[in-house]
Amino acid sequence: MSMRGNSTLFEKRPRSVGLLGSGVIGGAWAARFILNGVDVRLHGRSSDTVERVNKCLANARRAYQRLTLAPLPAEGSLTVVNSIAEAVRDVELVQESVPERLELKQQMLADVSRAVAPDTLICSSTSALRPSLLQAAMNHPERMLIAHPFNPVYLLPLVELCGGQLTAPTTLARAAEIYRAVGMHPLVVRKEVDGFIANRLQEAVWREALWLVHDDVATVQEIDDAVRYSFGLRRAIMGPIQTTRLGIAENDARRSMERFGSGLKTPLTKLTNVPELTDALLDKLAEQLDWQAESMSVPELEQKRDDCLVAVLQGLRSQGYGAGETLLRWENELRHCVFQLIDSTGPLSMPIRQIPFDWIGYDDHLTESRYSQLFEAATDDLLNYIGMDEEYRSIIGRYQIVETHWFCLRELRAGDRVQVHTQILGADEECLHLFHLLTREGDEEPAVTSEQILLHIDGGSGCRGPVQGRVRARVLELARLHAALPRPVRAGARVGLS
Amino acid sequence: MSMRGNSTLFEKRPRSVGLLGSGVIGGAWAARFILNGVDVRLHGRSSDTVERVNKCLANARRAYQRLTLAPLPAEGSLTVVNSIAEAVRDVELVQESVPERLELKQQMLADVSRAVAPDTLICSSTSALRPSLLQAAMNHPERMLIAHPFNPVYLLPLVELCGGQLTAPTTLARAAEIYRAVGMHPLVVRKEVDGFIANRLQEAVWREALWLVHDDVATVQEIDDAVRYSFGLRRAIMGPIQTTRLGIAENDARRSMERFGSGLKTPLTKLTNVPELTDALLDKLAEQLDWQAESMSVPELEQKRDDCLVAVLQGLRSQGYGAGETLLRWENELRHCVFQLIDSTGPLSMPIRQIPFDWIGYDDHLTESRYSQLFEAATDDLLNYIGMDEEYRSIIGRYQIVETHWFCLRELRAGDRVQVHTQILGADEECLHLFHLLTREGDEEPAVTSEQILLHIDGGSGCRGPVQGRVRARVLELARLHAALPRPVRAGARVGLS
Repeated sequence: MSMRGNSTLFEKRPRSVGLLGSGVIGGAWAARFILNGVDVRLHGRSSDTVERVNKCLANARRAYQRLTLAPLPAEGSLTVVNSIAEAVRDVELVQESVPERLELKQQMLADVSRAVAPDTLICSSTSALRPSLLQAAMNHPERMLIAHPFNPVYLLPLVELCGGQLTAPTTLARAAEIYRAVGMHPLVVRKEVDGFIANRLQEAVWREALWLVHDDVATVQEIDDAVRYSFGLRRAIMGPIQTTRLGIAENDARRSMERFGSGLKTPLTKLTNVPELTDALLDKLAEQLDWQAESMSVPELEQKRDDCLVAVLQGLRSQGYGAGETLLRWENELRHCVFQLIDSTGPLSMPIRQIPFDWIGYDDHLTESRYSQLFEAATDDLLNYIGMDEEYRSIIGRYQIVETHWFCLRELRAGDRVQVHTQILGADEECLHLFHLLTREGDEEPAVTSEQILLHIDGGSGCRGPVQGRVRARVLELARLHAALPRPVRAGARVGLS
Repeated sequence: MSMRGNSTLFEKRPRSVGLLGSGVIGGAWAARFILNGVDVRLHGRSSDTVERVNKCLANARRAYQRLTLAPLPAEGSLTVVNSIAEAVRDVELVQESVPERLELKQQMLADVSRAVAPDTLICSSTSALRPSLLQAAMNHPERMLIAHPFNPVYLLPLVELCGGQLTAPTTLARAAEIYRAVGMHPLVVRKEVDGFIANRLQEAVWREALWLVHDDVATVQEIDDAVRYSFGLRRAIMGPIQTTRLGIAENDARRSMERFGSGLKTPLTKLTNVPELTDALLDKLAEQLDWQAESMSVPELEQKRDDCLVAVLQGLRSQGYGAGETLLRWENELRHCVFQLIDSTGPLSMPIRQIPFDWIGYDDHLTESRYSQLFEAATDDLLNYIGMDEEYRSIIGRYQIVETHWFCLRELRAGDRVQVHTQILGADEECLHLFHLLTREGDEEPAVTSEQILLHIDGGSGCRGPVQGRVRARVLELARLHAALPRPVRAGARVGLS
């Protein structure tokens, strides 16, 4: 990944922040700031504050280790203190995340405003209370705002920023920069309402879900499954209004809203209160929809949605979870169908694959790790073919690739249909020497080759050990059959400038 | 990916299906069936039926090419016919997806029921109408059910199955098998209600969103962004009720619901109708939540959620879309911060990385493509370091890896902190010969090595061509500096069994 010009946004991070509250939100704020290199001073009332924050920090470290290969900064320090005054001393930003009780927050924010410098930002994590109610009794209320995050705060990027009647516009701009510098997506809420934006929408779902349980229409699991296997997959990509438009697949935004609006007259749910779809409201919706699309047409939006859905499904496949498990099961069915047809007397011709269209790097070409992924899939095919299944791996052992020499004769493009032909160059009790030759459909000459050495690893000891049973018989038989085949041209070649 | 035992589910696919309707849903049903090898006979009223279905099929092909490396079956055929009778002739399943008008659907389903064999499954895609209303006038109504899919049908797995008063239980089981065999997740709805489950939840969100636009609290884009940068990311993973529980982070399911319930007394939204949280309802929720969790504790659920969120975020990063764009921007900031500190007189010591915990394969070990990804990132680092930025690539050209010899001396584990040291073995106008040596932090000996040949490709011609400008100066200077360094032991080695 290349850098996008010179940016100094990261330097907008505060040196230190003061956090009040150590619940699910307070602890996760601590984790986000600390992992972004910001020193945290934290005060929580509960006796196990240190333990709770450390647990949250451990979860966040684990998540970031999976999330990114980018070099994380040196962690900020965590100082758990005994008073609010100590927590806010000399910090550049205060983040309050105490329980949702108006008087508690009012009093605490007023106290804090007297303890810090007049330009220290003071932010409340409240998920529902209006900033004007919270800032009234504060010293310098113009530097106060709501900064409402979402659980888990260290992973979800949104932070809703909302100023009250006394908040200065520059306060919102300063806060937005800080949250952006710790990897977040600030959204300025233009009007003070209870619950801001996202939680009002979440609450609507929650109420309807409660009715479904109450009326025995569905169980908790059925409701959750109905969401995560369907429209929930779209929600990570596009919001409810744009996906509604795509459900109609009507280029004209106003007509799509009109057509959808007819459904509102025959409500499905118990939550029937709905604004009338007047011409003025339709015009507003249409104008805002078109503005949002940024000149993308509906077909273009559909493709973007599909590409992102594919990426989300592949992500969930890597976890074998939810819709990703459905995908895995389907793929196994597909493999099962073609696997029995392979002839083993020549190089093994593995199933034809098409190079996925999203496998190209920044300049329209496959990256090396994609080639590697292709050959890894081919090696997996071979191992499946010789009978190395989950049972063998759980009881006896596995093969591990320890050396690869990969050679590219002609570049592949997305969409190319390719086939790997696999030849066993040698095999003994422990080693397996393979040569994969990948050709584009229709080509005589190979496009890419990969020579590999695999070692058999004993499952119990974790050291090299002999292959066993049916797999052993199969691999030695294949090696015997393939010993008669001509040796590939590039087998055993050296690397060097020619 | 290994196969999970012997399964024959895929063989449960029907040979052919008859589809009625060619809108967004009908066209996408055609695509799902055809790409799963099922012949489709389709009737649509509109004059551009063929064009619409083919457009949908093209989108679906494109999506599947990205989605999977599994060998797709030979496509089923598409036959667009002129009458309903022709569409349903000799098919094993009829799927009706005509507009949502009760009388239209009733008449059509009754007609179909008289035209097909008594055991042919007849399914309606209706998103709201109850099956008992639709099946009353049918011949053999016991083989009729609702099978309600979600847009885009070829990608989203959920299909809600709902039988009416006259539907036989075996009908639901037969249908579930068929939809599972074409990669879907069937969910049997236990009670007939308008809109089944998912659409009732979607409608609740939609109504609240409409109020927000109506009251000028937020624009369409702000509402959609508030969802997709926050709880929308969770929705692909866990449904609304389980995530609510995790928001409370309370192991006891009943207490988590009680604590959350207090918020229902101070509604945020205009949709205030809500069932009372009686003891009976709380008990029901708690029991169902615990059953859903399948003995996973709240901390375990939190980790599962985080792992899946990471996978979803990484998926969106590959598309540079939504929360994935936020992640990209943050990573670029991080790289920018550490990049200036590298000393070029010895092998270049690239930023330390930690092996992500989800990089392990089925047996707790890194797969070859992950090693390849590590070295690819190291090569990217080098290219960034010598000044090959987006501007250079868009105007002049790029380096392409054409050969790699990868050698594993000791295996890496998830969590290992590793550093790549990169030495230039040679460079001329067009070629660059690199040696990456990867060590675990604290180890003397390298763990893995990768020797690479890169060619400089001219951006205009797409053929090899000379490196230019500042990058040229930088790469030749580096080669000159590194010529004095000792040559790595494994440089130029051959592959072979020892």
